[in-house]
Amino acid sequence: MGEVITVERQILRKNDEIAAENRELFRKNRIFVFNLLSSPGSGKTSLLEKTLEKLHNTYRIAVVEGDVQTDLDAQRIARFDVPVIQIVTKGGCHLEASLIQNALGNFTLNELDALIIENVGNLVCPSNYDLGEELKVVVVSTTEGDDKPLKYPNMFRVADVMVINKTDLLPYVEFDIAAVRKNALSINPNLTIFEVSCRTAEGLDPWVNWLDGKIKSEKAD
Amino acid sequence: MGEVITVERQILRKNDEIAAENRELFRKNRIFVFNLLSSPGSGKTSLLEKTLEKLHNTYRIAVVEGDVQTDLDAQRIARFDVPVIQIVTKGGCHLEASLIQNALGNFTLNELDALIIENVGNLVCPSNYDLGEELKVVVVSTTEGDDKPLKYPNMFRVADVMVINKTDLLPYVEFDIAAVRKNALSINPNLTIFEVSCRTAEGLDPWVNWLDGKIKSEKAD
Repeated sequence: MGEVITVERQILRKNDEIAAENRELFRKNRIFVFNLLSSPGSGKTSLLEKTLEKLHNTYRIAVVEGDVQTDLDAQRIARFDVPVIQIVTKGGCHLEASLIQNALGNFTLNELDALIIENVGNLVCPSNYDLGEELKVVVVSTTEGDDKPLKYPNMFRVADVMVINKTDLLPYVEFDIAAVRKNALSINPNLTIFEVSCRTAEGLDPWVNWLDGKIKSEKAD
Repeated sequence: MGEVITVERQILRKNDEIAAENRELFRKNRIFVFNLLSSPGSGKTSLLEKTLEKLHNTYRIAVVEGDVQTDLDAQRIARFDVPVIQIVTKGGCHLEASLIQNALGNFTLNELDALIIENVGNLVCPSNYDLGEELKVVVVSTTEGDDKPLKYPNMFRVADVMVINKTDLLPYVEFDIAAVRKNALSINPNLTIFEVSCRTAEGLDPWVNWLDGKIKSEKAD
């Protein structure tokens, strides 16, 4: 296995270099960028839709969609008046900085306020790949079990924000909000946590207001 | 990327060789083996618990649990009177045949009727790794969206069975059972499909009866 690990390290080092270039580009153009991560079906695209509904008239936001296959998510986003690029990894379990770098050529960067990257649905692989984003936002849903932060610790370790989605289903599932908070904070005490239901819109305002502040402070820097 | 792909191919070839050894061992000992796959939180462990409840007094069943971190799942299984081994991949996104081969040394193989392998929660990576099992069973839950087979096609292509879990939540989510069936069958027309709720036990009997038949026919071969 030694050789494989070496190759993986080389890939990660090269990835980190390109991520640093992306980050510099975002900084120069004052674009606030976050990377949306979760297992398949936690509601990344729904959260993105709700976020765009609230913010796309105020800010110029672009979206990069990552999927193993299909452009279904980009189609969902296309109904908003925002530029969206779909990356299809064709089996790859994560986005890489170079894929983002290539996608950026499709946008007029100095016209953008924010870029949202929706990663491939996966709680393992994407956690190792810096894309140059400012923040990583991990979504967990109330139907997945409150032990997820303990079982996939690296994702919660590298994340800055945890959004607990599908709170409308709490009456019908065995999921302890206090437990998932405690489990996540035991891995990463610095996590900012939001509780939302993309279905009923409950709890979305604090999340959107927080994002709004982040985009504003990127502009003011 | 050429070198990386070569290394990955070598890994997969080596994995397939060990998987073939595992398969031969299972055949000689007439053990029916299946590999349980899904994204995190779809209910693999719950399905396993319900299956053991119904079958562990009739058959001698062993379990291998795969997780990125923690032995929480093995603890859940340990309350049944079955031998269980936890494999912790420490960041790895899938089980490999060699990990199973090592785990098998903990069991008395000729005393077993069945072995259930619960893979790491991931809809991408485990699909490439044959473990020597007879069948792959992919679990999708009604909270994940009915587009999952289209977005993660390789998993559904290699699977033999799809179990749709959490049917008790159908009234509260936007999930079309007919659509997920159609999407899955468009990728793999040979899929056997079950609809269950591990919470209410609805639909578990057809799944358990089908498994019962598989274990019996392995013995009779």
